[in-house]
Amino acid sequence: MNPKTKILKKLRETKGFVSGQSLCEELEVSRTAVWKNINQLKEEGYEIESVTNRGYHLNRIPDVLTKEELESIMLTDKLARNIVYREVVGSTNNEAKKYVEQHPAANGQESWDGTLFIAEQQNEGKGRRGRNWISPKGSGIWMSLLLKPDINPANASMLTLVSAMAIARGIQKTVAEKSLQEESQDTDRDHAHSVEDEMQIGIKWPNDIVVNGRKVCGILTEMGSEMDYINYVVVGMGINVNTEDFPQEVKEIATSLRLETGEHIKRSELVAEIMFYYEAYYRKFLKTEDLSLLIDEYNELLINAGREVRVIEQDTETVGIAGGIDKEGCLLVKCGEQTRKIRSGEVSVRGLYGYV
Amino acid sequence: MNPKTKILKKLRETKGFVSGQSLCEELEVSRTAVWKNINQLKEEGYEIESVTNRGYHLNRIPDVLTKEELESIMLTDKLARNIVYREVVGSTNNEAKKYVEQHPAANGQESWDGTLFIAEQQNEGKGRRGRNWISPKGSGIWMSLLLKPDINPANASMLTLVSAMAIARGIQKTVAEKSLQEESQDTDRDHAHSVEDEMQIGIKWPNDIVVNGRKVCGILTEMGSEMDYINYVVVGMGINVNTEDFPQEVKEIATSLRLETGEHIKRSELVAEIMFYYEAYYRKFLKTEDLSLLIDEYNELLINAGREVRVIEQDTETVGIAGGIDKEGCLLVKCGEQTRKIRSGEVSVRGLYGYV
Repeated sequence: MNPKTKILKKLRETKGFVSGQSLCEELEVSRTAVWKNINQLKEEGYEIESVTNRGYHLNRIPDVLTKEELESIMLTDKLARNIVYREVVGSTNNEAKKYVEQHPAANGQESWDGTLFIAEQQNEGKGRRGRNWISPKGSGIWMSLLLKPDINPANASMLTLVSAMAIARGIQKTVAEKSLQEESQDTDRDHAHSVEDEMQIGIKWPNDIVVNGRKVCGILTEMGSEMDYINYVVVGMGINVNTEDFPQEVKEIATSLRLETGEHIKRSELVAEIMFYYEAYYRKFLKTEDLSLLIDEYNELLINAGREVRVIEQDTETVGIAGGIDKEGCLLVKCGEQTRKIRSGEVSVRGLYGYV
Repeated sequence: MNPKTKILKKLRETKGFVSGQSLCEELEVSRTAVWKNINQLKEEGYEIESVTNRGYHLNRIPDVLTKEELESIMLTDKLARNIVYREVVGSTNNEAKKYVEQHPAANGQESWDGTLFIAEQQNEGKGRRGRNWISPKGSGIWMSLLLKPDINPANASMLTLVSAMAIARGIQKTVAEKSLQEESQDTDRDHAHSVEDEMQIGIKWPNDIVVNGRKVCGILTEMGSEMDYINYVVVGMGINVNTEDFPQEVKEIATSLRLETGEHIKRSELVAEIMFYYEAYYRKFLKTEDLSLLIDEYNELLINAGREVRVIEQDTETVGIAGGIDKEGCLLVKCGEQTRKIRSGEVSVRGLYGYV
């Protein structure tokens, strides 16, 4: 952590005022360095009150995604401890892949395992199969997690389900906290609980994050591998957080957290929540190299469960009732007497009426 | 095909002399162009006889791997119709990957599917998991086939078995032809048949090509993929063809075709044979996305079949009798009453005594 991160973290964690003196001593930096970093933070939008003889107090945190902002609230042990932030990139997935090339393993150890790449804006954001992903400045989270799982490449596709779980839980948590804050602020109003109750946040199999029936997130997982060995996995995540409007053609299926909650969400907090869950789920996944330890929690998040779905193959369409997933991430669909095991990528699943 | 390739092909395919006139007319090039290209070919080592009023005759073909040499004998329909030859490269796999980046798909169509990258020498030849692969000038075949199979990435590991089959068959065919040539040249000597009979050319599961119990080829298959979509597959093949000596530490397990047959093998002919089989096997593989149409032929090539093998897992070692593979490329090993299904990458298989 650089001094700026340390100062920010300290300010964040302290309820009252932090004296300049204690910052100098604890962080072992000069008075000038403290003053310089505080000023930089102010310029970035942090509202920092300074009172003679009392010190500094953080009044307001801006909605930024800088390295320092993220590092100062990250709750993880291994993931996203190294953060590469750039204001504008082509795509964070490409940044991550370039990073791998530029940082070859030393002593068989990859220095980059767990690194998070994040940007305010992507100019060439990528969706699956070379499609575009619109990533305007400031309104979303455009990030890529770079991993080196020591697993069989054939099992890597399950990582996308792990990612979906982490994002869905991260959003649930952040939205719930938001409503709790609202509740405590507006005790006379009674809408806080209802916001949370009304909202349906879950996963449409295999990896779409859906809020109130519309998609808020896309995941593009790319892998470089040998036949039985993974060189790297890049999990690209694009989350529509504070987007206020969508082009007409995607309005039907896309939405943002802002549009669904009516609230502005602080993106760094959401990133921290997602990474927290990611680490927990990822650890469980690595333990068995499948989803056996995660099935139940995934199925709780699965909004298709118990619903009628259309299974769309190349020429045929079958209607059935979706169950949950199995430990390999396949969706079990009951078609009459028969239970079909649907592998992602082979077929597509849609609700009978509409997207979900 | 450029004029040089066309001239070479014509010379190759004609038993007697080819007149300069007919070359000009058939290939629609000027007399000067014919003359220039013939001279270039001579400089590259082709022995071309030219006789006034009769024309040109190809007496001897050098052991080169140039684009023109390979194109003039390639027997395939789709694979290796585009050849990228460079005398010296870092590694042909990296050349192929760079090529993908520099040639994005146009209209959803990859121009590079099937391209073969080949070099006389690799300065940074790569083995599996970042190991080195020694690739000195002239003595071997260092090549990479770039493919874009429209299959599930989870099934791509079977491609390595497909590659092994093509290489093993290509070597068998080339060595057999060599002995036939010998036979017809030396009818009074009786060693020709015996060369072929004595040689055991086959596959050690999953993908080592073994001649007389020693390895002659390494395969490094790399893939760039999304979770259910392959961006590219690069199949790197390194074949010890005319190597005359190996460092002491690998002599026990490595050999070359030259050392085993006593003959110098023309590498371009071997490449053409391998690509011919590759195309046939690859087509069968794509049809079912597994090895069902190839099991029998693979098992014929499998030298482990019926032999005692040690199955080496992380901590344990089991002895069993190897059967053949199943349609997913797993090795079936009989351990007592039980038949175990060994997935490549999870465990390693060794003979009871020695490498095979």
